[in-house]
Amino acid sequence: MDTAELLGLDRSVEDALPRAIEELAQMVAVASVAAKPDAPMREGAEVVATLLRARGLEARLVPTGGGPPVVFAEDRSAGVDAPTVLFYNHYDVQPAEPLELWESDPWTLRIEGDHAIARGVSDDKGHISCRLMALDALQEQNDGKLPVNVKWVIEGEEEVASIHLPAWIEANANILAADVCLWEFGGVDDAGRPEILCGLRGIAYFELHARTITYDAHSGVGGSLFPNAAWRLVWALSTLKGEDERILLPGHYDAVRPATDEDLALLAALPDTESYLKREFGLSDFLGGATGAEYQRRAVFEPTCTICGLSSGYEGAGAKTVLPANAVAKLDFRLVPDQDPETVHRSLRAHLDAHGFSDIEIRYLGGQRPGRVDPHHPLVTLAADTARAIYGKEPSLIPLVGGSGPIFPFVAGLRLPVVTCGCGYPGARVHAPNENLRLSDLVLGAKHTTRFLAALVDRGVGSSAG
Amino acid sequence: MDTAELLGLDRSVEDALPRAIEELAQMVAVASVAAKPDAPMREGAEVVATLLRARGLEARLVPTGGGPPVVFAEDRSAGVDAPTVLFYNHYDVQPAEPLELWESDPWTLRIEGDHAIARGVSDDKGHISCRLMALDALQEQNDGKLPVNVKWVIEGEEEVASIHLPAWIEANANILAADVCLWEFGGVDDAGRPEILCGLRGIAYFELHARTITYDAHSGVGGSLFPNAAWRLVWALSTLKGEDERILLPGHYDAVRPATDEDLALLAALPDTESYLKREFGLSDFLGGATGAEYQRRAVFEPTCTICGLSSGYEGAGAKTVLPANAVAKLDFRLVPDQDPETVHRSLRAHLDAHGFSDIEIRYLGGQRPGRVDPHHPLVTLAADTARAIYGKEPSLIPLVGGSGPIFPFVAGLRLPVVTCGCGYPGARVHAPNENLRLSDLVLGAKHTTRFLAALVDRGVGSSAG
Repeated sequence: MDTAELLGLDRSVEDALPRAIEELAQMVAVASVAAKPDAPMREGAEVVATLLRARGLEARLVPTGGGPPVVFAEDRSAGVDAPTVLFYNHYDVQPAEPLELWESDPWTLRIEGDHAIARGVSDDKGHISCRLMALDALQEQNDGKLPVNVKWVIEGEEEVASIHLPAWIEANANILAADVCLWEFGGVDDAGRPEILCGLRGIAYFELHARTITYDAHSGVGGSLFPNAAWRLVWALSTLKGEDERILLPGHYDAVRPATDEDLALLAALPDTESYLKREFGLSDFLGGATGAEYQRRAVFEPTCTICGLSSGYEGAGAKTVLPANAVAKLDFRLVPDQDPETVHRSLRAHLDAHGFSDIEIRYLGGQRPGRVDPHHPLVTLAADTARAIYGKEPSLIPLVGGSGPIFPFVAGLRLPVVTCGCGYPGARVHAPNENLRLSDLVLGAKHTTRFLAALVDRGVGSSAG
Repeated sequence: MDTAELLGLDRSVEDALPRAIEELAQMVAVASVAAKPDAPMREGAEVVATLLRARGLEARLVPTGGGPPVVFAEDRSAGVDAPTVLFYNHYDVQPAEPLELWESDPWTLRIEGDHAIARGVSDDKGHISCRLMALDALQEQNDGKLPVNVKWVIEGEEEVASIHLPAWIEANANILAADVCLWEFGGVDDAGRPEILCGLRGIAYFELHARTITYDAHSGVGGSLFPNAAWRLVWALSTLKGEDERILLPGHYDAVRPATDEDLALLAALPDTESYLKREFGLSDFLGGATGAEYQRRAVFEPTCTICGLSSGYEGAGAKTVLPANAVAKLDFRLVPDQDPETVHRSLRAHLDAHGFSDIEIRYLGGQRPGRVDPHHPLVTLAADTARAIYGKEPSLIPLVGGSGPIFPFVAGLRLPVVTCGCGYPGARVHAPNENLRLSDLVLGAKHTTRFLAALVDRGVGSSAG
């Protein structure tokens, strides 16, 4: 494409914004919280499928054997000589709790200047909008047709560890063949530099349940006699990680592949977000006093064990003298290559048993293996080149990010290069109250997506895929 | 009194039951949960004061300097030669949570056969009914007049450690002079034997607050870098008590006065509730495998440290990958003679500081000192004798009970013997869902109260008290 054509594409992206905002409002109005058993997941899928069909994609809701349906859509009208791109997104969102910290209803899109605010507005419904804007622009500049074949997987369980997705991908590998996968997120850092992400950590998520007596007892009666579920849980948890942050499960670090010199070089080239993060979270120091290169290495190349929630006994105001019968902890282990969640599950059980906590029940809520893409893959380079053109800044090539996602079946199962073009930024408060999206980022992310797709065509990528 | 007169009193108590049930329904309908800042405490006090006034007592609501009012009532018409009795009760109740475990609305009295069910129906509104029935019976058998002078203190903070009561008693000692104090509870054991309680443990109640970052973070971003409030709290708590139940605060056992041989003899004479408690709470063993005399000693003569509640991060269903900014534990220390709560408060702070947890904030929600009465005091013996007559069973003389209450200012400040006549039983589920009272126990407790008061007159107790 020549410069005039590219600028035409950019204008078409800008023109697509009003409709995108309207549709984003439709999407966030559905509280599709995968973690909640009664959430309107099917409605969340239907809303998304309708938006895809409006662009001429053939979209259907595919059962996943127990979980919310996967929305699978495709438009292969570009033909076998055109590139085929696989979009991966999700229509499920994190819970909105704690509700009292939201400045407006989390399920009603609020626009305030450049900011759109609602649960899921960035993670991940805004990214669905970003892709839709790219399709709108490409169709407008191409007589209503898409120059690339599009396959689109939008799952409904990303926030609960994509429980059913890996098996679904394995079973449907034949219809998912593509030249490249556009991941569900991406965007800019604190300084507005675009980020190209080349890997995700894995995760293993558990609930630990302690149950000691048939019902909560009066603490004056039972204090010396009855086992206390809260104490059992506290003692059990305290054996899992030392105050030095070292995880104490047996063999937990055995499979850890340390960062390579190349990884460290890529990290060293990244902009410094240390002061931003410290300011945002009110910290004078990171754990262990890590700074500079060591902070960047620890942030992603170290396994973690996070207590995500604790609950037991009386949690209301004031003093209730009760001895709890039940206690629950939610626990999330982030995994680095080549750890895997099933091994963590087994060693957690073995560890608790060995420390006298056979009474603690483990519920495995799901897990994902970590996955990486070669930062020098030509399509990763293409994503970086198009980002440089749109953002006017040098992109950051990030070897591994701290978050998790179902990347493993895409990179290891489908053997696809995965690239990121997106509309996120560090202040987006994903997973937290007042999640937000900058509309200017949405436009930039959509332009980057559009340019990347156009560049695939220009380069003649994948003339035999399909 | 002769036998005919005593039987007349008993009949009058029975006649008083329908009105007592009606008034109990009025009392429990007010959700006077002292732990909740917006609870209708004044309404709870008014309802009670109205019932007292209906018996001719002069009742007033006395401010306590910040807390709910104390209801103070008296009827001194019996004259200076009659005995003076001080009733101590409370109109506040424990929170009803967890609400989902109640079989009916906790704030609506439900009668099912011999059981009345509602929050506070036993602890302590049923005991107010028990005293009212005794006054009704005495008035009916005595031409509408009371043969004893009655002073009645009904506080509104017993379930939150009677924060303002000790100072109020100290300041009002002149109007509280009496010959004996009837405590707020009492009743029978599992086998229907009446219990005479001669002491209460003390308590110190705290909240521990951990706060690490400005708001909950994404666990994938912060897991390796940000201090986690839930982990800080777990690690801090785990230093407070070992898995062997030994409390690790420095000098915590220094002031503990071990049970005497006489205490142990009294405990040995008590009926065995071991199998009852184990069955009720689904336990095969008590902590440390304590049985027999050692179980009975540990149940009351050992200090305890109970986690009453834990709260942090995401506590809803499923997996939310969040790193909590805040975590709270509620902690209750039961104290034995001669421990005191202020010392525990100081040593808790010192202990946390010494273990590197200066960041953990301690909020002291209140405390009480333990207090005891001589089991051989003649009025304790009188309470036992009248119990034997009413219940037809040998009363249990209990040297110390596991629960706490504001007994210290009564026994040490006012220098009163404290005795118990009441309507409780071990299945009453006080502090738990489905709290209940057996109406037959209410009648027996009221008969016992009536007989005890009549016996004070017969023995010419307190002809100069005032």
